[in-house]
Amino acid sequence: MKILRVNLETDDIRYEQVPETWQRLGGRGLVARFLLDEVPPRCDPLGPHNKLIWAPGLLTGHMLSSCDRISVGGKSPLTGGVKESNAGGTTGLRMVWLGLQAVILEGGPPLDKSWKILYINAEGARLEPADDFVGLGLKDTAERLIERYDSRIGISAIGPGGERLYQAAGVTHIDKDRNLTRISARGGLGAVMGSKRLKAIVLDQPRSNKPRLVDETLFGESSRRYLQGLHEHPQTETYKEFGTAAMVNMCNTFGGMPTHNFSAGNFDAAEKISGESIRDLNRSRGGEISHACMPGCTIRCSNLYAGPEGETLVTPLEFETLGLMGSNLGIDDPDIIARLNHIANDMGVDTIDVGAALGIAAEAGLMDFGDSERALQLMEEIARGTPLGHNLGNGAAHAAKVFGIHRVPIVKGQAISAYDPRAIKGTGVTYATSPQGADHTCGLTIRAKIDHLDASGQVEVSRNGQYNVAAYDTLGVCAMGTFGFSTDNTIIPDLINAKYGWGVGEEYLRKLGREVILMEREFNTRAGFTKEDDRLPEWMVHEKLPPHDSVFDVPDSELDTIFDTP
Amino acid sequence: MKILRVNLETDDIRYEQVPETWQRLGGRGLVARFLLDEVPPRCDPLGPHNKLIWAPGLLTGHMLSSCDRISVGGKSPLTGGVKESNAGGTTGLRMVWLGLQAVILEGGPPLDKSWKILYINAEGARLEPADDFVGLGLKDTAERLIERYDSRIGISAIGPGGERLYQAAGVTHIDKDRNLTRISARGGLGAVMGSKRLKAIVLDQPRSNKPRLVDETLFGESSRRYLQGLHEHPQTETYKEFGTAAMVNMCNTFGGMPTHNFSAGNFDAAEKISGESIRDLNRSRGGEISHACMPGCTIRCSNLYAGPEGETLVTPLEFETLGLMGSNLGIDDPDIIARLNHIANDMGVDTIDVGAALGIAAEAGLMDFGDSERALQLMEEIARGTPLGHNLGNGAAHAAKVFGIHRVPIVKGQAISAYDPRAIKGTGVTYATSPQGADHTCGLTIRAKIDHLDASGQVEVSRNGQYNVAAYDTLGVCAMGTFGFSTDNTIIPDLINAKYGWGVGEEYLRKLGREVILMEREFNTRAGFTKEDDRLPEWMVHEKLPPHDSVFDVPDSELDTIFDTP
Repeated sequence: MKILRVNLETDDIRYEQVPETWQRLGGRGLVARFLLDEVPPRCDPLGPHNKLIWAPGLLTGHMLSSCDRISVGGKSPLTGGVKESNAGGTTGLRMVWLGLQAVILEGGPPLDKSWKILYINAEGARLEPADDFVGLGLKDTAERLIERYDSRIGISAIGPGGERLYQAAGVTHIDKDRNLTRISARGGLGAVMGSKRLKAIVLDQPRSNKPRLVDETLFGESSRRYLQGLHEHPQTETYKEFGTAAMVNMCNTFGGMPTHNFSAGNFDAAEKISGESIRDLNRSRGGEISHACMPGCTIRCSNLYAGPEGETLVTPLEFETLGLMGSNLGIDDPDIIARLNHIANDMGVDTIDVGAALGIAAEAGLMDFGDSERALQLMEEIARGTPLGHNLGNGAAHAAKVFGIHRVPIVKGQAISAYDPRAIKGTGVTYATSPQGADHTCGLTIRAKIDHLDASGQVEVSRNGQYNVAAYDTLGVCAMGTFGFSTDNTIIPDLINAKYGWGVGEEYLRKLGREVILMEREFNTRAGFTKEDDRLPEWMVHEKLPPHDSVFDVPDSELDTIFDTP
Repeated sequence: MKILRVNLETDDIRYEQVPETWQRLGGRGLVARFLLDEVPPRCDPLGPHNKLIWAPGLLTGHMLSSCDRISVGGKSPLTGGVKESNAGGTTGLRMVWLGLQAVILEGGPPLDKSWKILYINAEGARLEPADDFVGLGLKDTAERLIERYDSRIGISAIGPGGERLYQAAGVTHIDKDRNLTRISARGGLGAVMGSKRLKAIVLDQPRSNKPRLVDETLFGESSRRYLQGLHEHPQTETYKEFGTAAMVNMCNTFGGMPTHNFSAGNFDAAEKISGESIRDLNRSRGGEISHACMPGCTIRCSNLYAGPEGETLVTPLEFETLGLMGSNLGIDDPDIIARLNHIANDMGVDTIDVGAALGIAAEAGLMDFGDSERALQLMEEIARGTPLGHNLGNGAAHAAKVFGIHRVPIVKGQAISAYDPRAIKGTGVTYATSPQGADHTCGLTIRAKIDHLDASGQVEVSRNGQYNVAAYDTLGVCAMGTFGFSTDNTIIPDLINAKYGWGVGEEYLRKLGREVILMEREFNTRAGFTKEDDRLPEWMVHEKLPPHDSVFDVPDSELDTIFDTP
């Protein structure tokens, strides 16, 4: 495996050996190590000293179900700290098949400010002109790239959101069915890519080229145990049928569904936007139910949302989007949410941060809650790049500052996901303490068998979740895949030993996860973060959330010591 | 002396004894102590737990030339840290004459969201309805208040900028000639006042009511020594003739004049906007040259800018405004700068942060440098409160984030004043290390007899300046007044001993200044600041400033230890 290093300022392209300290890392863990090793912690995230890395997970490359994710990472313009955002699609797979443990972008934009495409195949890499791609939505970008190169290319690209340096812009990856919609959404990494004027990376490696294994038999045998666990897990069927939208009813039942800019935890019309309703609607319209974003995935959680004629309007329509662009805006019509989602996807922006920004716009009187037409207009402002669109495209924290709104649901500048932390307090602990800023994927606790309203014990649940996730994100394992690993602690070590021969034991996963989080915290500390940044918004500590009238009351002292425990 | 505490949420109004630890503090020092004692460091600056304090200086109240300033303070929405912003006018004087060592606003906005005026006279204080003042510019606000109460009232008020929570909004004080234009401009304290829905404080105390003195003879004698020093100082005459606009030629000569969003330090047309040209233009138009903002001031630095008919267009037209709204935007017509200034004054926003935001707008392609008409249009957007206006009214840091601009001249979120720190490096040290964020008034070094381009020795010069200023700001002494104190170190201690009988010595001023800065840094630390916040923008360390091709190269290690030396 090699590192591909590309300097956009100088056009310098170099293949390098993998440094020794990077060899046992991939994905999120490699992002953290890379940031500590190479990125000045106080640098301007959109300036020439920030860098952007693509790092497949340690298990990526084998088409093992839910284990082929790609991490994108750099210093976040949104949080000012460490940022890793992983996604499915085929980027990870094709990068590994090209023999790349990482692709690194560095330097400022080209002196002539021209836009580029980075084309990589088995022979090498080159920068190609892309000025004719400027302003293209991601749908058109994918079509044009496929036309220019090959139908089987991998693509990581930014939409107009990233080009304009919107701080809610992500980096979007193509999936196995040629939808350019799998987004490394959070933290504004698309703006970092845009700041270097790279529109897309094209990975031209159509044929499978799986990495070598130290012990093929062990890998095969432990893969089978994993797949069996995955098949037998009750959640697998749920996600296949409903996608993450299955979560709407559950979260609403717990009173944690973000409603009207996080002013209530119950949405009256939750049923209308639930996974069940969406599946039924899809069926009645003759649409497909779900598909896999990565080759080999047996869960196929990526739901499809069909328009009236059965045509796919958007894929996937995730729970987070239903929460932030649905209930949070008082919108109960899934057709509208799908259209909002489609615009966000085509612009390449995070539906969570942009949805939260629309909630702020509503609170500021720029729209009424529930006004679908106005919500669509506001999304069009984002798409057109008007001053108002810039405000919203920069996410909730900026929108709130611009419009003087006090009730803003953010941690470290990043919007809270669709689980209100006053009702799901363990997830609130994750929002507060994750080095990544508010992000449910860093340690969601809603499935834990605890009273989510009781502050006690939440820190432990969050800690366990955060260690696990940090490790899985390093391996390239999807949240869905963890269902297959959770029942047997020997599978992960067996897979790692079978692939690399490192002889790791059952403690591997947790130790790895903690190591990654401590590296991330170290970067944040060097960037100027303190424990005061590990806090939920002040108003969530004071303002009661109906229906349980709960506030976030996990003590600061517990938040401050969460990672002291191994 | 008493403390007046007003809770806008509950309408509770209370006169309190001055706590013992506050008794030897006033102005900026009292702001720091108050923040440490009463304001949760991590609170939302625009939320109900922030407080806003008015604190006259320790020497305020005697109509001694340049010694009657008022400090306004709170947690800054712009920097997230300590904020004190002092101004002239009559607020300080009238507050002391009302027997008030401080007025404190607290609580959230009234439940019914109505706007209020706080009326104070010798009998007491009351809240009065002010919904009919909403949206009024400061000129109309002053007229309406004078009509409603008395022509001799003191006023501290916010314009529409503060009402809309623009983070560049200040708190504006009326001067002795009834211009409501003396602004506590920096750090967004007007937004804090707006967040509590207080439009104005009216101080109805027409007659002089000077505080008692322990030793009248000593006070009189040391006052005379001070006034003599002031009269004899060469700068006094300069400021009387040109106001702070005198600085244009000097700063331009040093190559530190902000030009085209801080991309050069020499402005070709500097002569056209210099103090000399403005004085001559004024004379030719038959306008007055200058006036005093505080009764008893012998310097009268507040220049007047006359329109073609001799009518006053704006007062004062400060150097900072000529820099940030003139050369920084490539605008060389003082009539245009005066009009931009007038709009800013009427809105109650900081010309430095808004001027820097317009520079960002130009860099983002929203206007051409030098396009006066477009600059006026953008100011009108701020006045109208459009989404674009909100972006600009929130200051340079926000405008840069919104429009994805990398070259933003800020420290701790606050815009750099009109001295480029790459050419005047000692002032750069002040920008970087002052707990207040970038602010020349915290320690301007341009008059120091050193090579401003040489990094060595700048930290010492800045430190001396910062200690001095922090003390003078605690006493209520204007920067101009310091000319009269600088030649004789015994005058300040004599005045303090004559007024209070504290028996302080010559070390008093420097010790006081350092004590104040350490308190401010303590608040910032508790609010989450680290040494990483004490840095100039990264690009100013790399990008060379013409004509000297200088970068800011004072080592971080020196910045980090600046306040270790007493």
